[in-house]
Amino acid sequence: MSEKISLAHGDGGELAHQLIQEVFVSAFEHHEHARLDAALLHVPSNKLAISTDSFVIKPVFFPGGNIGKLAIVGTVNDIAVSGAEPLYMTVGFILEEGFLIKDLKEIVTAMAEEAKKANVKIVAGDTKVVERGSVDGIFINTTGVGVIKEENFLPRKIKEGDSVIISGTIGDHGVAILSARGELGLLTDLESDCACLNRLIDDIMSASNKVKIMRDPTRGGVATTLVEICEDFKVAIEIREDDLPIKPEVEGACDLLGFEPLYLANEGKLLVIVAKEDEAKVLEVMKKHELGIDATSIGHVVEQGEGKLFLKMTLGSRRRLNRLSGIQLPRIC
Amino acid sequence: MSEKISLAHGDGGELAHQLIQEVFVSAFEHHEHARLDAALLHVPSNKLAISTDSFVIKPVFFPGGNIGKLAIVGTVNDIAVSGAEPLYMTVGFILEEGFLIKDLKEIVTAMAEEAKKANVKIVAGDTKVVERGSVDGIFINTTGVGVIKEENFLPRKIKEGDSVIISGTIGDHGVAILSARGELGLLTDLESDCACLNRLIDDIMSASNKVKIMRDPTRGGVATTLVEICEDFKVAIEIREDDLPIKPEVEGACDLLGFEPLYLANEGKLLVIVAKEDEAKVLEVMKKHELGIDATSIGHVVEQGEGKLFLKMTLGSRRRLNRLSGIQLPRIC
Repeated sequence: MSEKISLAHGDGGELAHQLIQEVFVSAFEHHEHARLDAALLHVPSNKLAISTDSFVIKPVFFPGGNIGKLAIVGTVNDIAVSGAEPLYMTVGFILEEGFLIKDLKEIVTAMAEEAKKANVKIVAGDTKVVERGSVDGIFINTTGVGVIKEENFLPRKIKEGDSVIISGTIGDHGVAILSARGELGLLTDLESDCACLNRLIDDIMSASNKVKIMRDPTRGGVATTLVEICEDFKVAIEIREDDLPIKPEVEGACDLLGFEPLYLANEGKLLVIVAKEDEAKVLEVMKKHELGIDATSIGHVVEQGEGKLFLKMTLGSRRRLNRLSGIQLPRIC
Repeated sequence: MSEKISLAHGDGGELAHQLIQEVFVSAFEHHEHARLDAALLHVPSNKLAISTDSFVIKPVFFPGGNIGKLAIVGTVNDIAVSGAEPLYMTVGFILEEGFLIKDLKEIVTAMAEEAKKANVKIVAGDTKVVERGSVDGIFINTTGVGVIKEENFLPRKIKEGDSVIISGTIGDHGVAILSARGELGLLTDLESDCACLNRLIDDIMSASNKVKIMRDPTRGGVATTLVEICEDFKVAIEIREDDLPIKPEVEGACDLLGFEPLYLANEGKLLVIVAKEDEAKVLEVMKKHELGIDATSIGHVVEQGEGKLFLKMTLGSRRRLNRLSGIQLPRIC
């Protein structure tokens, strides 16, 4: 097999066939019905969750992962936060002519490993190759399907007093990618937090039936995700500056570069809004999971009616936070 | 709203929110549960078909359609040929900084129209924007979910004597795109055949329970699709050169440029393999449908055991056809 991707790898002919057999089929456990145009699936429920995401991250390899791992994580998490169990995934590759097959194999291997860990089957795929200069290396789309248990159906009604919990430190992915780009003269050892949250979510859902909504605060960060929740559910939320878990490296990079951790992307963090009375119970199960060791309560729902997010500052004043506006970090996922 | 796509349209913040509201939500009928990370779907069956495809066609606008229409058609057809009824679709856009919002609106409108025609709901989406030069204008991924009626489950066992039917003329899409590119000094009025086949397929499945397999011969054309069927089902198929329906413009362009119509992409044609005894019945219902007026029998299964495709030539000799090999036409879909 050649060392580099050529246009003929994407034309549906002999080389495309070889690429599929040697790179994809050998990495992804081959689903029995996956060889036709459409994969045939059996699902144990009539209620499905479906989510799609394209990944254009730059660089393709970064501390803590690569575009392939991220493509699995991102979609698994989008499905899982809806209260569904992710079961199946499709994968679409767009490759640049000249892309190294060695790199593609490394990416595909990471996808297979992460999918296995998350217990998700990759059941259908597609590969397109475009001429040099028409795409920057590799872009990946993943679409996931999950099933929903009736009693886990989210979101539930959010009320004044409900607690806002974050599963760990914020902004890690954003700073790790900035550092990997080396563009800004910034170098840290920080790894992306890129991880599948579905097992952590299982534990939370088993411990409490008073979880109102869960989200993974990716592009736009914790602040933008909370603004969206405030607007969608017509509530005001106040978060406390003092309680935000932020790694010193992230704090330092943000001070240096003028970013705010609240607007930086996370790829393995969970925001949970839960009734006050179950806050302690949820924090307890989260802290027992490796992805929730640093879980902490960062705020609460202050009132219903208006869709606004506030930050209670260390010195006691309160400022309103809006969704991210203007370019922060392109190609962060 | 601005006239061109900027990086900030893809960062998950305020401009991204505006783009989604003003371009996507207003075009696609907004599914009631589509606003969260994952859309929640109800499906009337536990047997699903799922398929994914990325579209990188060049040019984005061409006679008979655009990349948006094609992205709906391609995935609807992949689902429908498996015997499933396409119900839901996700859409992922990757946009180049500077792409005209007017063009994006035209593309999205075509998607909405085609989805409506095919009776498919667009339930979840994603938009990424990359800096100028990192993608060629616009790439779209669509992933479709359909449900399968037990009695329509395909493929069924293929046997010697089974008939091979094509729903109309071959190679139209390939030549239309070549012509639209203008690269080769070739100009015809030919339109792409780009169309959703699910209604035609419904009619066929209602008329006969002896359909063995259906495929839409896109990249790689009729020959590559049939080679795949031969290999997958370990049968030999013979098609008759004299019976291949080919438009004079396609024939002419192929003579001029050295292409073979059997290897050119189609985007609205159906290959059906059906038991000999139902051939006439299937042809009859196909010819009644606007997308099957030129349906014709082009060959048959000659024997079991070996996975080979043969072309019976006008003068009586027989030559073996392999899958497409080497570059024919990059970015044809």
